[in-house]
Order: sequence, then C-alpha cells, then structure tokens
Amino acid sequence: MIESEPSPNGAAEAESSSRKRVVIGDVAARAGVSKSAVSFVFNNRSGVSASARERILRAADELGWRPSARARALSRSHAQAVGLVIRRDPELLSTDPFFPQFMAGVEIGLTAHDYSLVLQVVADEQSERAAYHRFADASRVDGVFLTDVRIGDTRPQDARELGLRAVVIAPEDAASDDGVAIGMNDSDGVRRAVHHLHSLGHRRIAHVMGAPMYVHTEARRRAWREALVDLGLPVGTVVTADFTGASGARATHELLDLPEPPTAIVYGNDLMAIAGVSAATDRGVRVPEDLSVVGFDDIPLAPYALPPLTTVRQNVVAWGTAAAQTLVALVEGRQPPTVRLPPVEFVVRGSTGPTRDRRHA
Amino acid sequence: MIESEPSPNGAAEAESSSRKRVVIGDVAARAGVSKSAVSFVFNNRSGVSASARERILRAADELGWRPSARARALSRSHAQAVGLVIRRDPELLSTDPFFPQFMAGVEIGLTAHDYSLVLQVVADEQSERAAYHRFADASRVDGVFLTDVRIGDTRPQDARELGLRAVVIAPEDAASDDGVAIGMNDSDGVRRAVHHLHSLGHRRIAHVMGAPMYVHTEARRRAWREALVDLGLPVGTVVTADFTGASGARATHELLDLPEPPTAIVYGNDLMAIAGVSAATDRGVRVPEDLSVVGFDDIPLAPYALPPLTTVRQNVVAWGTAAAQTLVALVEGRQPPTVRLPPVEFVVRGSTGPTRDRRHA
Repeated sequence: MIESEPSPNGAAEAESSSRKRVVIGDVAARAGVSKSAVSFVFNNRSGVSASARERILRAADELGWRPSARARALSRSHAQAVGLVIRRDPELLSTDPFFPQFMAGVEIGLTAHDYSLVLQVVADEQSERAAYHRFADASRVDGVFLTDVRIGDTRPQDARELGLRAVVIAPEDAASDDGVAIGMNDSDGVRRAVHHLHSLGHRRIAHVMGAPMYVHTEARRRAWREALVDLGLPVGTVVTADFTGASGARATHELLDLPEPPTAIVYGNDLMAIAGVSAATDRGVRVPEDLSVVGFDDIPLAPYALPPLTTVRQNVVAWGTAAAQTLVALVEGRQPPTVRLPPVEFVVRGSTGPTRDRRHA
Repeated sequence: MIESEPSPNGAAEAESSSRKRVVIGDVAARAGVSKSAVSFVFNNRSGVSASARERILRAADELGWRPSARARALSRSHAQAVGLVIRRDPELLSTDPFFPQFMAGVEIGLTAHDYSLVLQVVADEQSERAAYHRFADASRVDGVFLTDVRIGDTRPQDARELGLRAVVIAPEDAASDDGVAIGMNDSDGVRRAVHHLHSLGHRRIAHVMGAPMYVHTEARRRAWREALVDLGLPVGTVVTADFTGASGARATHELLDLPEPPTAIVYGNDLMAIAGVSAATDRGVRVPEDLSVVGFDDIPLAPYALPPLTTVRQNVVAWGTAAAQTLVALVEGRQPPTVRLPPVEFVVRGSTGPTRDRRHA
C-alpha cells in the first residue's frame, strides 16, 4: 500500500489552500474511488477497471500527485506473484505426475489471494541460479517454491539473501532451519511397501534408488533400509539409478545378475519400476511369479502397466495448495496456516505377489 | 518506453531556468544512467541494479519528475511476461509429455528476450475465462499462448478483445485467421501409421479418438480416414474416447466386441494405446500377434510398455521455442520469424506386426 506522507503544514482541515500538500485521499476523492484503488493502479495491481484506472490517472495528473519514492520502492517489492524454477530433464518432467499436480494445487491456493505463478524451466544449475536472480532483481515475484531439494542445497539461504520468501517442498523428515518446509511423508509409503512384501514372504528385498543428489531419494532409501532392519530382515542390495526408465532397466539387470537375486524390488519411482518389469520380462523373469515390483508416484499409467503396478500415492494437489497458502502468508507477513496433509496411500495391484515358497505352502 | 513530453516553452537549450520542464533525460543525467534505465525503473522492469534504482528514484524525486499519465498507461501495458492458461484434467496433464516439453521450449525462446512465463492451471471453462481476464485487467502479461484449441474456440477473438496478443498452438492444417497459429503436422504422423499398418497386411484398421472438442483430435481422425481412402481400404470403425486410460480401455473392448473386430487400432494418444493393450491382453487378445497398436506422443514410458509401443513423436520443445519467439515478436511489434519445425517422426516398436495371413504366407 502506498501511504500518503504527512501534510507538511499540518493544516489537514484547512480550506482549499494552494500550499496544502495533495495526499492519496484527494486523488481517490477526485476519481471517486477508494484509496486502495489508487494504490493498486500505481502498483500495477489488478482489481481496478480500465475506466476507473483512467479516472485515477487523470485525477493524479490534475492534482500533481505522485507516490513518494520511498513508498514506491516499498510497494514495488510487491509483485503479487510467486515463482517456481523447475530444473529437470524433460523426460523426468513429462513422466512425473508431481509437477502438474503440484501446479494445479498451487493454483487453488494462489487464486484465492489473486496471486500469479511465474514459471521457469531450466536445464542446469547455472540457469537455475540466473532464474532466481532474475526473479529477485526485477521484483518479478515476492516468493518462491523450492522443489527437488538437493542434499546440501543452498537455495533456501540464497533465496533469503535475494530477499525472496521461500517455502521448501521436501519430505517432512528432511525439514531444516532454512525456511519453512512443507512435506509429505515419503518414508511412510516405502515402509508400507516393505511390510507388504514381507507379509507375502519376501526376505530378499532390493531397492533401486533415484538420483542420489535429492533429499527425497535419500528419504526413500533410508525408509527402505529402516523397515528391513525393523522387520529383522537382511538389508538387501541397493542400486543407484537416476529416475529415468533406462536407468531402472539397467539397475534391474544388475540385481537379477546377482548370485542370489532379490525376489522383490522397491523402486524410487514408477517409471523405473515399469522399465524394470520390462527388463525382467525380457530375460524370462515373470512379474509377480518370480519377482515382485513396487513403484512410487502412482502415475496414471500404473493401473494399465502389465501387470498393473503396486505403488505409493501422495496427494500432491493438496500439497501444492498448502504450499501456496503458506507462501502467500509469508509474503504478506502473516502467520502461515497449520498444514495437515492427507496421509500417503499404498496401492496394491498385480505386480506384487507371494513368493514361490509361500505359494507352494 | 516512457517518452518525455515536449518542453512547453520550447527553450530546450536555455540556461537553467526555473520554468524549464524537467524531462526524462534530466533524471537520467542526474542519476548518471541512461534514459532507458529510468524508463525501466518506472515500469518495474528488470536490468537495473538496486543502487542505480535508488539513485534514479532520488533524482526523480529531487527534480519533481514523473512520467506522464499517458506514457504510464502505455508503458504499463508492457509486462515483459507472457501467459499460458492450461485447462486440463490432472490425469491428462501428468501423462501428456506435451506441456512440460512445450514449457521447456517456451523457456528457451523467452529467456533470450528476458520475458517470464506466467502460468495458470484451471479446471473448467469459467475459471479459464477468469484467468485471461486477470491476465489482461492487471496487465500481468503482454500476450498468451492458446493451447488445446477447441473446435469453434472463441479464445483467439477473446484475447484480441482483451488487448492480449496471441499465438495459437494447433495442428498446422487447423490454422485460422484469428491470430498467428504455429502447428506441427499431426496428420503426417497418423498417415504414416496407417501406411505402416497397410504394409503389414492390415485392412481393418480402427481409430480411437480423443476428446472430440479439440482441433487436434479432429485433425488426427481426419488423417486416419483420408489415409484409408487413399489406400483404397474400407474406412474402419472410429470410437470416441477422451484421452484417458480408462476411456482407451473401454473403446478397445468396444472394438474387440464387434462381429468383425479390427486387426489394428490407431489411438489418439499413448495413454489410451497402452490401456488398450492392457484391455486386449486381459481378454486373451495378443499384441501384436492378434492386434497391432499404434499410439501418439511417444511418452517416455512407450519403449518400456509390454510390448514396446509403436507411436508418433513430435519435437514439442522446438515447437515451444518457435511459439515463444513468435509471441515476443508480436508483443514488441516486430515481424515474427519464419518458423520451420522439424518433421514429425514415426517410431516403429513391438506393438505392430504383420497380420496372421501375412505371417503364414
């Protein structure tokens, strides 16, 4: 909001005087609008009709009024927009249901407050850094969502130094002191996958993890390991992949080449799991008769995979809405709402089944 | 750009006179910056450092300079941003490689010109209309990309009436007079699919089309029909679906229930095709031995489907870049560049094969 400066002569109620300083209320009165409307027009904000805008600009012109430099500088920092920089391989962007669902959820949270989402898709770290600087330098956004959080990620601090409020989107057990974090419980989904496989008789349960740079990759790997330990099972083999289909197929071959191959594999996402089923099938390993497979994400294709994929589903739309509400509150200096996200679901389909021993028992 | 108004007394070169009107050049000189920098600061545009911005605002304050209302109104219309409103079911948004690839391509085109992309994901037509109004009312964007163009779509005219420049993203044979259209050759991909199936001996080639409201749905259906006619084949059955997996499975059952079921099906997208393979397999129809299947999109999972999916691939990233370059040119009043998009590719994998007759011949 643009605040009028105090009248220098203090004669606020004096009859029309040529020396009386024009304040924002005078412009509003002449234009027949509220002070907010005047402020909005001079801050390029929405909510003022074209005709009112014209009256306001004419009134300001005729009265010789303009917002003070300090007020302008302050108000200019309010872009009524928040930003999201996505740094992803196009393959992962187009198979991962996360971003479209997250953006749909963000939209629900932003529309209620008349904020816009400014998006940048970048290929590498340098472009990513430049994108945040562009956001900040030009005051294009008031705050940012930080997704795909990396281990040792400096973006929360970077954003603070750039004057951008930030909400970190990461598994809930990965929250740090640097900024407000909103997270789903990835670990719970993976834990339930391991318990499900255990109940079907599996003891050699391997893990194919995604790109190790990400916090959520590590959260899923740790949950797999801890569940095995809790159940008294041997900690199986973990193979590092990168969330792509090709890496999932390669990792599956590596596991099936072991002298004692696993009877079940928990993958870090659905794309690697479906590619893993394809790799296993190619070498005559049947899913789920010889190998049980669990994914993560529940992409829309998961029910149509052959066999249909057992996987973990998160309510990403709700996550996006909560993130947006939180970021808007931070930007406006309000206390963020308490976030209660729906629990992660575990969806059992045809890609998991009892071990051979269990079937013959 | 903010233009200074003509000096009222014409004494441009007079010695410092108290009556001389202050122009933008005076502010620039006092702040030690270019006139462009002053214009940028008063238009909330990027490219001016914080310290320069402060000097400019102080200089303008001290000289009592402000841009004229008319110039402000003109320059305010330049947001240095373009908008994209996506109206999609979340399922289709998260399986369709179009949007992430398109946005990645748009980014390449926009970054070179320092434009931002403002995104809105909406659920229905009313919210879609409101989104374009918000873009225009608040001058949040200078132009828009119109995707998922519908038959009888009024958005090109609506955008023009709202003062937004528009680039229509649609199959190239669907270009109209309303705004600049940039399109891939969808028809060519479908035509090649039909010729491929014909060369494998297929004569009963059906089509499962997506949601009939879209121009690209109709372009693909028409290409399928015309290719059959060109080859002297009977025009097979077409079933209307809606691009989702569930609709693809349902349509496939409908076709396989026919007294003379097709030996090949061309689907409007990969998601319906993969769900179709799943439906066929469930009823004991083997792909490709009993039924050949062709998709459209080449999603990252297509090579890992069982069997790997034969499909049509478009270079959507290049499409997005061309669209962005064109829209920026329109917004800036320049002649748009000549667009040459790479041709559509037809990718043959395991889901298509010779008919039984052909195999036994």
